[in-house]
Amino acid sequence: MFETIEWTSADTVRLLDQTRLPAEEVYVECRDVAAVAHAIRSMQIRGAPAIGVAGAMGLALAAQSIRTRSFEEFRAELSRHGEALRQTRPTAVNLAWGIDRMQRCVEQHKALPVAELVQSLIREAQRIREEDILDNQAIGAHGHRLIPDGAAVLTHCNAGALATAGYGTALGVIRAAHAAGTRLSVWAGETRPFLQGARLTAWELQQDGIPVTLITDNMAGHLMQRGEIDLVIVGADRIARNGDVANKIGTYTLAVLAQAHGLPFYVAAPLSTVDLSLPDGEAIPIEERDPAEVTGWAGIRTAPVGARARNPVFDMTPHRYITALITNRGVVRPPYDSGLTALAGPDLSGRV
Amino acid sequence: MFETIEWTSADTVRLLDQTRLPAEEVYVECRDVAAVAHAIRSMQIRGAPAIGVAGAMGLALAAQSIRTRSFEEFRAELSRHGEALRQTRPTAVNLAWGIDRMQRCVEQHKALPVAELVQSLIREAQRIREEDILDNQAIGAHGHRLIPDGAAVLTHCNAGALATAGYGTALGVIRAAHAAGTRLSVWAGETRPFLQGARLTAWELQQDGIPVTLITDNMAGHLMQRGEIDLVIVGADRIARNGDVANKIGTYTLAVLAQAHGLPFYVAAPLSTVDLSLPDGEAIPIEERDPAEVTGWAGIRTAPVGARARNPVFDMTPHRYITALITNRGVVRPPYDSGLTALAGPDLSGRV
Repeated sequence: MFETIEWTSADTVRLLDQTRLPAEEVYVECRDVAAVAHAIRSMQIRGAPAIGVAGAMGLALAAQSIRTRSFEEFRAELSRHGEALRQTRPTAVNLAWGIDRMQRCVEQHKALPVAELVQSLIREAQRIREEDILDNQAIGAHGHRLIPDGAAVLTHCNAGALATAGYGTALGVIRAAHAAGTRLSVWAGETRPFLQGARLTAWELQQDGIPVTLITDNMAGHLMQRGEIDLVIVGADRIARNGDVANKIGTYTLAVLAQAHGLPFYVAAPLSTVDLSLPDGEAIPIEERDPAEVTGWAGIRTAPVGARARNPVFDMTPHRYITALITNRGVVRPPYDSGLTALAGPDLSGRV
Repeated sequence: MFETIEWTSADTVRLLDQTRLPAEEVYVECRDVAAVAHAIRSMQIRGAPAIGVAGAMGLALAAQSIRTRSFEEFRAELSRHGEALRQTRPTAVNLAWGIDRMQRCVEQHKALPVAELVQSLIREAQRIREEDILDNQAIGAHGHRLIPDGAAVLTHCNAGALATAGYGTALGVIRAAHAAGTRLSVWAGETRPFLQGARLTAWELQQDGIPVTLITDNMAGHLMQRGEIDLVIVGADRIARNGDVANKIGTYTLAVLAQAHGLPFYVAAPLSTVDLSLPDGEAIPIEERDPAEVTGWAGIRTAPVGARARNPVFDMTPHRYITALITNRGVVRPPYDSGLTALAGPDLSGRV
């Protein structure tokens, strides 16, 4: 088994380099916050909950490196590192959420000497990781009954153990159903341009012995038309108060297709992915990455030299396409606004 | 400029190897029907009208090689070659159409000595190629007014000069609009797994100076949602009597998306693509190719070893998603059955 990300006994952050999977299983050891920022930006680690953990652990590394006994100096310096980490990727709210939690931890322990405060921050980052795994197991426990026996389940991108601290969100529901004895098979969309479906989801599910068949993203409609898909389940990078969901590019297309074929469309995510400060999905920033990811793959150019390309890496699915949200505190059905607010409680509703 | 396929003065068939574009512009010289069959099967030449021409020219090569003075022997031997060519790819009806036309030519010239009949067949194959170019220009002339000034046009796969004897079907409409002074820009879906959009459409339109931007197939929904696409125009591999269209995998998904966003969805094809013998699209055979096309690209494996994949390379778009069919004899709007039958005339209505 692999570990997506962990805090080592040598006080470093060790993460599985997802750009090299499935060909090679190589771990990256990050000794400072700059290395973590690079790992997030270059997608060595990706997936909303996973980069939330990475952001928190990056800040713990930063805390270790600050040479001062002054709380004010420490807090100012840590805040500067936090802002830099926030900029690495804009769409997933979990990154900001992880950093916010670390900064709340600073305020809660401001009475401690800085050296002890640093130890508290390291423990907090580890706690965020452990809680994420528990949250995903809870998502699986709440969601697995939504998968009928014998179902063919389509998923997109990788919302698995690799996208989280472990177990996964959408794949967590699939894992929990499999563990409960539900017979199921998975269709994995390859998820161009970064191919998380082909490289990561197929690899993860193979290891668990869950039947998985790869398709290109443009095959989903055809398979739905032929009755070969029973439901869709995906993860999320940010969920607005009204239930609009930002997730990997292509998610919106699958939601439109699911509705056209009368199929359930589920989104699985921990409450750390919910951003109650946004009334709807319109304001969620959609990251655009290097067009070279679209004009080629693995150093091989596929498009002609000089070809223009666009590369929005997320899209926004309006809540009316979503059958239910599967969270760590339960399944939420429309209307999402009241449901999410009730589940989130005071720890999330105050977020801005 | 390039030539997709031509009959050379040395009585061979010369075709541009589309598997090596855009990196290399290499021509393949086919001296016998087996080489043409290989070129069709391996997709050195692809696109429904282009393989119709290739089939006819392959049969002309076969005719040249038959060593008999007996008409009956000649016809039987040619028929055997025709059946073998028909099997190379199942979905596009143009291949069968081209072979049928060559076999009708045999019947029409059965009184001729075999040597002269062979010359007639060579001329017939060349005529099929020339007519295809004229048909595409007619498609452009009929269709270009459907593109409003300033339009952003999404196309899929390659329905261009490379998919035909020249000029193109969907890209023929775009070329005709551009030539008429309509300002337009093209979104090209890359079209996994074979990447005809990235490799061929971007290359063709670049050469003509028509603005083109490449996207991965899963980005179309997002761009429609943002109002960045005004209409969709694609080619076809087979059109049933009721207007159902088989075309490259992913076409159906774009049609569902276009309808969800209230955008026109046009299909451009010559009448040689219409199969009046089929009442609807249900019976159109959908070719499945090697799953290795899905698990990797250009010899680079992207999925883990042992990963299963599916590779249906066409899908079927029900007529209710299609705004109009743009043919060489005019634009057909619903109901398609009567419109197609009227346009096709006796030369097509008798096809079985």
